[in-house]
Amino acid sequence: MKEKTQDKKIDVWMVGSIGIDDIATRTENKKNLLGGSLPFATIAASFAGAGVGAVGVVGSDFGRAFQKRWEHFGIDLEGVQRKPGPNFRWACRYDDDMIERTTLKTELGVFADFMPVLPEAYTKAPFVLLGNIQPDLQLHVLAQARKPRFVALDSMNLWIDIARPALEKVIGKVDLVTMNDGEARQLTGKWNLRDCAAEILKMGPRFVLLKKGEHGAFLFTKRDIFIIPAYPVKTLKDPTGAGDTYIGAFIGCMAKARTINTTAIRKALMFASAMAAFCVEGFSTEKMERITRKEVACRVRELMKMTSAT
Amino acid sequence: MKEKTQDKKIDVWMVGSIGIDDIATRTENKKNLLGGSLPFATIAASFAGAGVGAVGVVGSDFGRAFQKRWEHFGIDLEGVQRKPGPNFRWACRYDDDMIERTTLKTELGVFADFMPVLPEAYTKAPFVLLGNIQPDLQLHVLAQARKPRFVALDSMNLWIDIARPALEKVIGKVDLVTMNDGEARQLTGKWNLRDCAAEILKMGPRFVLLKKGEHGAFLFTKRDIFIIPAYPVKTLKDPTGAGDTYIGAFIGCMAKARTINTTAIRKALMFASAMAAFCVEGFSTEKMERITRKEVACRVRELMKMTSAT
Repeated sequence: MKEKTQDKKIDVWMVGSIGIDDIATRTENKKNLLGGSLPFATIAASFAGAGVGAVGVVGSDFGRAFQKRWEHFGIDLEGVQRKPGPNFRWACRYDDDMIERTTLKTELGVFADFMPVLPEAYTKAPFVLLGNIQPDLQLHVLAQARKPRFVALDSMNLWIDIARPALEKVIGKVDLVTMNDGEARQLTGKWNLRDCAAEILKMGPRFVLLKKGEHGAFLFTKRDIFIIPAYPVKTLKDPTGAGDTYIGAFIGCMAKARTINTTAIRKALMFASAMAAFCVEGFSTEKMERITRKEVACRVRELMKMTSAT
Repeated sequence: MKEKTQDKKIDVWMVGSIGIDDIATRTENKKNLLGGSLPFATIAASFAGAGVGAVGVVGSDFGRAFQKRWEHFGIDLEGVQRKPGPNFRWACRYDDDMIERTTLKTELGVFADFMPVLPEAYTKAPFVLLGNIQPDLQLHVLAQARKPRFVALDSMNLWIDIARPALEKVIGKVDLVTMNDGEARQLTGKWNLRDCAAEILKMGPRFVLLKKGEHGAFLFTKRDIFIIPAYPVKTLKDPTGAGDTYIGAFIGCMAKARTINTTAIRKALMFASAMAAFCVEGFSTEKMERITRKEVACRVRELMKMTSAT
């Protein structure tokens, strides 16, 4: 969506979906929201101060207003193609518990024929997030990168069901795999999350990050487990995009730090918890768009205090 | 069940049920297990090195073997009455998820007419756990104590349903109230656990400890929240008694330390998490009876490492 420029610095690029969402909860009903994994992940990453490039596709009905909101965070949109035809649209209704949800509409539009192309300026970026899209496309776009230092992969139950061989192939090529507890159980056929993680680690990645929604997450390596708390939010408005925000904030923080070790990863995960908490306090990316980096830092400190043993 | 002695030192006394349980899981079926809240809570507390007194009732079919296993941990049983008639018996079957369960049998036996009497040697103990029994009985036994420094209260959904006024009265007399997330929602009519805790704190206690099973717990004060992780167990055998173990280990650790401040409480809660994890790794109290204090200390350190931010 943007011209090439010579001087841009891309620390991390991310591929994912770009949607226009309708979200209904018990008390509210919102239409035409900015959605899809990529806006959440990139905006969250921008809070870490990283140079972020986005790879995706939008349709002719994806408005300039959306684009401007996105650009406001300094996110590079050269990798976002604009195609004639309708944008990807999705609608859901949350149950009263705000966890279970029913998908009311999935219209792929231009996303159906998405073929990601990595801009030249992104190819040398050291960090990569392969957001949740068809695993063959994840492989296709990853192949265009020149030896990234750290690649994180997100996926979903649909690909476990219908594209398992491709998914296993891409899992074997990345450094970190993230999924939620239910997906990890579905992928491995194990129930205990330690067993799930052990199975996924055998497929190749060094890190497995299993998310448990409001209950936080576990990071597993072959040797260690790290328990990452979720920040207890006061007002849950819309859980959509929390997982994308989480992994986007994480990789953004890693890309800014440019250090790959357990301490850096733990720090990035606390940052990710704080960002995900802001995400669910508003519809779409709206709350994230209203906060400052100072507020994020404050929440990270609060979370550290809540979990400190002394 | 024991004679009075002059030289005993009771740091904490606990009242609760003493049962004989039949437990069925997907893979195993065990009968005539030591059960009820009191054996779990007292054995867990003994690992902290506290002098523990037990207050409860057993029937004529409560065997000497049970009593010996209990005494092996140095727990004082002067407060345990032996009555003619059948012991309290309970049976349940766990669903495959090992969380949901169906109660198959509840035979109160001598527990139906239980009227707790506090031995003289317990009356000056500084710490008290009012385990889950009828709230009027909790009030009755607490009235026999001489100004304890710290009283913790456990309860259950049944008393919220049928004895709410008495339950609210006892909540107003204690320092710490613990319940699980579902019970807190039932008691307060709120969904968000921060809102639940705020309501319970208004009833009088200084601390509210809300348990989320395998997802850990929150400790709330009027000013602070502490997130307590659950230790990720490798093999879950039987979740029965985990909550009793948790609160018993907590109050035992507090009673041993004899210090009531946030740091001591946080430390005691990490100890409690470690003990509860051992509890669920075996049926009844069996795994707890096979471990050493060194193993517990090791697990506490492991848990600290898993949650350390650096």
